[in-house]
Amino acid sequence: MNEFEIIERYFAPLAGDGAFGLKDDAAVIPPRSGFDLVVTTDQVSEGTDFFRNDPPDTIARKALLVNLSDLAAKGAGPKYYLLSLLLPEGVTPEWLSAFTSGLAEEQGRWGLSLLGGDTSRAEGPLSVGITAFGFVPCGHMIRRSGAKAGEAVYVTGTIGDSGGGLAILKLEKHALDAEQKGYLIGRYRVPHPPVDFGASLMGRASAAVDVSDGLIADLGHVASASGVRIIVEGEQVPLSAPLKALWGADVLLRAVTAGDDYQIAFTAAPGLSGPFTQIGRVEAGQGVSLTLNGREIAITKPGYRHF
Amino acid sequence: MNEFEIIERYFAPLAGDGAFGLKDDAAVIPPRSGFDLVVTTDQVSEGTDFFRNDPPDTIARKALLVNLSDLAAKGAGPKYYLLSLLLPEGVTPEWLSAFTSGLAEEQGRWGLSLLGGDTSRAEGPLSVGITAFGFVPCGHMIRRSGAKAGEAVYVTGTIGDSGGGLAILKLEKHALDAEQKGYLIGRYRVPHPPVDFGASLMGRASAAVDVSDGLIADLGHVASASGVRIIVEGEQVPLSAPLKALWGADVLLRAVTAGDDYQIAFTAAPGLSGPFTQIGRVEAGQGVSLTLNGREIAITKPGYRHF
Repeated sequence: MNEFEIIERYFAPLAGDGAFGLKDDAAVIPPRSGFDLVVTTDQVSEGTDFFRNDPPDTIARKALLVNLSDLAAKGAGPKYYLLSLLLPEGVTPEWLSAFTSGLAEEQGRWGLSLLGGDTSRAEGPLSVGITAFGFVPCGHMIRRSGAKAGEAVYVTGTIGDSGGGLAILKLEKHALDAEQKGYLIGRYRVPHPPVDFGASLMGRASAAVDVSDGLIADLGHVASASGVRIIVEGEQVPLSAPLKALWGADVLLRAVTAGDDYQIAFTAAPGLSGPFTQIGRVEAGQGVSLTLNGREIAITKPGYRHF
Repeated sequence: MNEFEIIERYFAPLAGDGAFGLKDDAAVIPPRSGFDLVVTTDQVSEGTDFFRNDPPDTIARKALLVNLSDLAAKGAGPKYYLLSLLLPEGVTPEWLSAFTSGLAEEQGRWGLSLLGGDTSRAEGPLSVGITAFGFVPCGHMIRRSGAKAGEAVYVTGTIGDSGGGLAILKLEKHALDAEQKGYLIGRYRVPHPPVDFGASLMGRASAAVDVSDGLIADLGHVASASGVRIIVEGEQVPLSAPLKALWGADVLLRAVTAGDDYQIAFTAAPGLSGPFTQIGRVEAGQGVSLTLNGREIAITKPGYRHF
């Protein structure tokens, strides 16, 4: 198959309004009066974000979801995406078919469509780049910079599961049963960002961030952008049972510094309730501290870094 | 340097409105009343679109210009871009500095700014993905599908130079002097799309395409999308003197099937004059034919294909 046949067979069925069936040089996004367009881009690569033999639909879903997580953290609902593929030799029609099924499933679930993209042959690792687009009312994108002393810190979901799954795939020793193992590996392969939750942050969150490099590292970005100090109360951090089983006494420190969570951390007035957990507080000062029962715990490496 | 230091030092100076200094999860594009946003994405990769030891500023410029070419072909002026980098080990601060100088130069020339991006480490070829954004009056993006029988076909610039430069770099035999060689290699490394010309297509061109895969192949897309037949009159195709010197009697066939031109081909009323050349005509029917002095010339491979 040449690139035009690949586009026609696998990607054109994913295209929607403004994409012209992926048959033109560019796509169109009409202006939406009173709304800003929010744009984010993230690529996932073999060996770093997934493994070559992972089920292709999970690779597609992860590539898309790590971007929808960014949009949600900014209060934006997703609407369109672009797809850039670097495909090594040996990618089969079956692989492409399963990959696009994963995209189709996620885009159907969240109501978005493919706007365009680029497919190139690469003599190297498989890489999937997504650019995602969403809308927020003008001027209301939630920034990292609005946290204020006296507020509380919240996070959605559980923290560290993906890092646990990766450790298992990297053959770290463990005594988990198949179900626990499957849960953690599943969270590494396909994150569960609260895509729909983004809209409910509006008017409530003063600052928000996508937890992708590690909870402590990403809250560090909020602290730095907002000019505040953030205290994470370790005993409040939501941890899954399989992760506790995997790491025992080390679980907290490993969870808060593991990457690939794709949950949302945000600051807001204390005492809120909803599908999230209050994990700390904002004070005057700078940096992020982790405490356990009131005592500060030293952190040497706050999160994942590509370099 | 870690990724945050790389962003801060090299990329933040390129950021403009809506990018928040590249310090947030996403960027913002405010709605422009009466204008559609036009979006295109193209990646360039080592070994396919450039060579590892090419001057880094030319790699940056090519990555950006191949996208501005798509926008121009749609009648859109560029405004923003996103940058996705896959960087292998061994990329030095000097390389990054020269690379970003190339971006700075081109974005200054065309009045656009960096909106965001993603930088990842790759165990493979260097790859640069750009997503470019421009604006056109609502509903007026020039499509591939508007060509009508009785119109003429035009192209900007000269055709085939980049393919000639690539052939020289691939050590094809030639008898060119240093200046001729430098000209062709220069066109391979840094295309010269008519970025500003796009706006003048509006109200004049019925269809347009970016010549990137090869003149015949890309006009084939126009013929197919428009449901017409396109005749390219070989004797009218604009060819540079160095390219004629390189390929002699073969020049026409090689030029019209070489990739990487990044010129604009468009259809419009016959007899127009401007910074372009009339190279053929639109008839009822389908497909693309190449003629030389009225006789049809057979073409086995109309252009470059990634697969």
